Amino acid sequence: MFITFEGVEGSGKSLQVARTREYLQGKGRTVLMTREPGGTGFGLALREVLLRPDGAAREAWCELLLYLADRHQHLKEVIEPALARGEMVLCDRYHDATRAYQGAARGIAPGDIEAVSRLLGVIEPDKTFLLDLDPEVGLGRARRRNALDPAAAAEGRFEDEALAFHARVRDAYLELASSHPQRFCVIPAADGPDAVFARIAAALDSWLD
Amino acid sequence: MFITFEGVEGSGKSLQVARTREYLQGKGRTVLMTREPGGTGFGLALREVLLRPDGAAREAWCELLLYLADRHQHLKEVIEPALARGEMVLCDRYHDATRAYQGAARGIAPGDIEAVSRLLGVIEPDKTFLLDLDPEVGLGRARRRNALDPAAAAEGRFEDEALAFHARVRDAYLELASSHPQRFCVIPAADGPDAVFARIAAALDSWLD
Repeated sequence: MFITFEGVEGSGKSLQVARTREYLQGKGRTVLMTREPGGTGFGLALREVLLRPDGAAREAWCELLLYLADRHQHLKEVIEPALARGEMVLCDRYHDATRAYQGAARGIAPGDIEAVSRLLGVIEPDKTFLLDLDPEVGLGRARRRNALDPAAAAEGRFEDEALAFHARVRDAYLELASSHPQRFCVIPAADGPDAVFARIAAALDSWLD
Repeated sequence: MFITFEGVEGSGKSLQVARTREYLQGKGRTVLMTREPGGTGFGLALREVLLRPDGAAREAWCELLLYLADRHQHLKEVIEPALARGEMVLCDRYHDATRAYQGAARGIAPGDIEAVSRLLGVIEPDKTFLLDLDPEVGLGRARRRNALDPAAAAEGRFEDEALAFHARVRDAYLELASSHPQRFCVIPAADGPDAVFARIAAALDSWLD
């Protein structure tokens, strides 16, 4: 089972992926937790290029191609082998992020993104948690985190985008969720992390039954 | 006018591009000399990822997407503006290198490469010099250069490929030249640099008349 976590900056994905791993391991499952970009050695090199705040002059298509290169290596080297071994794979951001950020927010046509993705053999997850949050709240959280953590701040390029950019990302995520209701589970993420995780655990329990 | 220089490792492209620039400037032309990968700040970051000798585990498609991302930024930021200003552009490697290395030598289908390239708006050069050389001779030259120059050795990933890989690259270049006889000018490159440049200069003179 391949489960992805999506949401705007500051929606709490990384924390909830980690709690989900603990929860599933507690039920005896073998779980691989990973993330994009940067789930492989090659991907880490690309992550550094992609998230540096000085990358603003880059063309939208260049950003898209790097995310797809990261994903392709990640699928071949990490995700597909783990699924073939029968493990559960939890991934912090995946292809829906490309649709929302490079597609809806940067303006690359969805048909063009899917044309390249088909050539690359991008697979769909079985389930996707969308941690839904007002982007103004999420950006406030992300900026407070960055002020305390230089490593997070060094990867803060998307936090520098205008609020309107993040509003397009959120709208695109919600549209994807309503187009794929079987795959998506939308989790309101404005409450504290325990309340958010309780909603995730309830959904996990119903899928695993 | 957009002129590219192609050939196997050690065929003398960089030297001949520089001599061509000097020659054309001596005739009063405004010339922009550039190269791939690494013709922009973004491209330099990708060049470092692409040419590091530890990148051997990378999937062929990942390599392809990075070369195309480098090219797209290079076209938008450097090449197309220079052509629009009426300058001559000389480029050390360009899209035929992708066809030869990632297509013929790594085995990605030519139709797939061209499908992505069309979405990116990759333009064809007006003229292409193919410096044709037995890859065994070229690799010998490149390895002697790398032994003397740590910076070149650090970018020596392709020199580490087997001779059969470079033979496929050479064959692919020669096939491209015979499919596009108006665009390509094949220059035998086994002789000394003066003899090679005399052939290039003769071709330039005939085009510029």
